[in-house]
Amino acid sequence: MNQSEKNALQLFQELKADKSRPRFGFGQVCCMINIDLQRGFVDTVNFNGYEMDPEQISHINRLSRLCRDRGMPVVWTQNVHGAEAEDFGVRALRRPGPDAVQGMLEGAPCTALDSRCDVDRTRDFIIKKRMPSSFFETHLGSLMVARRVDTLIVTGGATSGCVRATVVDGFSRGYRVIVPEECVADADAPAHFANLRDMARKYADVITVSEAEGQLRNLRKLDNAQGGDR
Amino acid sequence: MNQSEKNALQLFQELKADKSRPRFGFGQVCCMINIDLQRGFVDTVNFNGYEMDPEQISHINRLSRLCRDRGMPVVWTQNVHGAEAEDFGVRALRRPGPDAVQGMLEGAPCTALDSRCDVDRTRDFIIKKRMPSSFFETHLGSLMVARRVDTLIVTGGATSGCVRATVVDGFSRGYRVIVPEECVADADAPAHFANLRDMARKYADVITVSEAEGQLRNLRKLDNAQGGDR
Amino acid sequence: MNQSEKNALQLFQELKADKSRPRFGFGQVCCMINIDLQRGFVDTVNFNGYEMDPEQISHINRLSRLCRDRGMPVVWTQNVHGAEAEDFGVRALRRPGPDAVQGMLEGAPCTALDSRCDVDRTRDFIIKKRMPSSFFETHLGSLMVARRVDTLIVTGGATSGCVRATVVDGFSRGYRVIVPEECVADADAPAHFANLRDMARKYADVITVSEAEGQLRNLRKLDNAQGGDR
Amino acid sequence: MNQSEKNALQLFQELKADKSRPRFGFGQVCCMINIDLQRGFVDTVNFNGYEMDPEQISHINRLSRLCRDRGMPVVWTQNVHGAEAEDFGVRALRRPGPDAVQGMLEGAPCTALDSRCDVDRTRDFIIKKRMPSSFFETHLGSLMVARRVDTLIVTGGATSGCVRATVVDGFSRGYRVIVPEECVADADAPAHFANLRDMARKYADVITVSEAEGQLRNLRKLDNAQGGDR
Repeated sequence: MNQSEKNALQLFQELKADKSRPRFGFGQVCCMINIDLQRGFVDTVNFNGYEMDPEQISHINRLSRLCRDRGMPVVWTQNVHGAEAEDFGVRALRRPGPDAVQGMLEGAPCTALDSRCDVDRTRDFIIKKRMPSSFFETHLGSLMVARRVDTLIVTGGATSGCVRATVVDGFSRGYRVIVPEECVADADAPAHFANLRDMARKYADVITVSEAEGQLRNLRKLDNAQGGDR
Repeated sequence: MNQSEKNALQLFQELKADKSRPRFGFGQVCCMINIDLQRGFVDTVNFNGYEMDPEQISHINRLSRLCRDRGMPVVWTQNVHGAEAEDFGVRALRRPGPDAVQGMLEGAPCTALDSRCDVDRTRDFIIKKRMPSSFFETHLGSLMVARRVDTLIVTGGATSGCVRATVVDGFSRGYRVIVPEECVADADAPAHFANLRDMARKYADVITVSEAEGQLRNLRKLDNAQGGDR
Repeated sequence: MNQSEKNALQLFQELKADKSRPRFGFGQVCCMINIDLQRGFVDTVNFNGYEMDPEQISHINRLSRLCRDRGMPVVWTQNVHGAEAEDFGVRALRRPGPDAVQGMLEGAPCTALDSRCDVDRTRDFIIKKRMPSSFFETHLGSLMVARRVDTLIVTGGATSGCVRATVVDGFSRGYRVIVPEECVADADAPAHFANLRDMARKYADVITVSEAEGQLRNLRKLDNAQGGDR
Repeated sequence: MNQSEKNALQLFQELKADKSRPRFGFGQVCCMINIDLQRGFVDTVNFNGYEMDPEQISHINRLSRLCRDRGMPVVWTQNVHGAEAEDFGVRALRRPGPDAVQGMLEGAPCTALDSRCDVDRTRDFIIKKRMPSSFFETHLGSLMVARRVDTLIVTGGATSGCVRATVVDGFSRGYRVIVPEECVADADAPAHFANLRDMARKYADVITVSEAEGQLRNLRKLDNAQGGDR
């Protein structure tokens, strides 16, 4: 039993200091999954967004460009739902509680991807989701199969919500999952660090963005940069 | 931004002190999902199990009996896998790291449900799973449909692993999810409390076992105690 | 072994003549799933649609109204996809073969629901899908859970494609599935009858629209006509 | 509208005669999915099994060996269920009707794989399923991801049941699907041919076993014959 009274940041730093932890490592074909970088979550000026590392989005853009250059897919998700109560899911039952995502109505300005995101509208995939995991009731699963992806690089937010849920689903489905630490964020710092630690212990390689960048550069480009290796 | 430097226990207690939080509440048909109460995880004498509340399993037995009495289903999961590397999933890639669940081989004594669990072999369901969520690649989903369940009572362990993953999946699929605090456990206390807090904020009603018991007693018995309301 | 040389219509009539076949029967809460009644498939004037029973859509409207009156959900699906090759799925690999659904591009007039369909825009659910089954990578599954549905009434087309796939998935997930014969159609009559026979033998009650209507009238209205029995 | 009054065999032969049909083709990594070759379905001597091509199982063994030699996975499914009514799924509601699969109880002799099947117990995967599709609530999905499969070769039976359902799910998930005609069978010849035709038109390449064999021989062996290209 670990009965430590340290806080989440301290515990995560402790875990990171242990250089002996084994890695899943990168496979052959990566996909960037950039989660919910919509104005309502990341625009701290016009919306009630949150920010941890001010370079988060530029890091994500850089990794995404590397992926594209290698002929590997880039996905951007948006959390949106319709006006019907059912579309909120069971969340509608405790509306309008704190921590609500109600209000992310399809078409509302808060659901638009932040303008800092370098989305390649001709090659990237934009996937709308209603629930925490990017795989849940979306076509991310079949897209990963079509492109023969074996490695997911998960970024965006929130670390303790949609990032964690996507990481667990990715792991369960058999993917190597990589979380570049500076690329994920959460409005709640203790939850951010606790979830980074959980993910690192169980489901993912939590690494620095510069290590992720180096690994991506090492990957062999796919012959058909547009169509993956299909 | 919450930048608190409190530890996970303190933050969870803070959340519990806020009595204004809205509830999902109980629906009409509950299912107990008792997760991975197998010897390797809960037997602290013969195996390397962990225990938080010494009454955990007797609480779970009591709630399960109440469910059965109302004609509602009780599920016990076991985490087991075959000997093939693929059956470990992507986990096999970083074998034999710390925090490994490798070794939960089908048929091994550590995978047997602990003898303290009151399993009703004629009416309960035992579901084997390989991954964190009890729904993932198991028939829990269709069983919930067949019994018209709308409320999941999730117990067992680990809070930061299979419990959390099952709760997120249950929430996403449209179920009201109830976590009786004394009925879940984790070998890592900080992760236990951080995940209780995450679940309470986002996905579930985290309540006391005595409140869960009271709510269960209030539910109308199903006409056909064996077959649910089908 | 059945080595009959009869054609599909004859074999289906033979099956219907056997009145001893057991039924799944209706449960307590139905959902209409009206599949792909979009202009490209059903408008025989302006598009290359197909029609078997000229009353098909008015039958569907009547059943849908009965469902709504009982507080039960009505779903209309649309088959649409984006412009990217991956969004066609593996179909893109044999483009532009015969029997192609390529061309059902999001926003194209051929994807609009036919104007004869009485869609209640305030209460019905419109679900976009890319693949044959209405459950595949859509939120139909969680919607069914949220409304505690136990019975699916499947209509639309094509009998040998999206109807069959939805029926098999509905059956697998634990739903009673009802196919009112006059409410489904296919551009290929032999495939229509062969699939009606397969579904009747294995997965569904294939009944007349008038029997379905009678059964629906007998169902107890839900207390909360808007919100199902949640 | 096709209003042909031909029977299913005639229509399938008509389709096969059209050599201009485009193909999905083979990808880079195949998986054999040999469906439900259990005694109850294929043993015509001791059980009430059915047989179309007496060489079916030897064809399947030959293709499976080719797959294994290339380091590609071979899966054998079994249709089994527990004694509880729910484990039959919604089927239990019309028990004991004709066309019942009830009786395929876990451990019963009729569920054992037929002794003619050359199963490599150290390398092949045996997956138990309850419902028609081999993907439904089984870990076939994550196994395909782990081995980076892009092509499914589907054999076994019944053509109009589990084969068809697996083919539709495989297609939907983004796999190229190959059905070697002589390797699938059905107790009902008209349903067999009607479903071969449906699959060929919509979801799969229905080809001869000798063409499948030639294609398999042409595939590049994976470096790591045991572990796929992971």
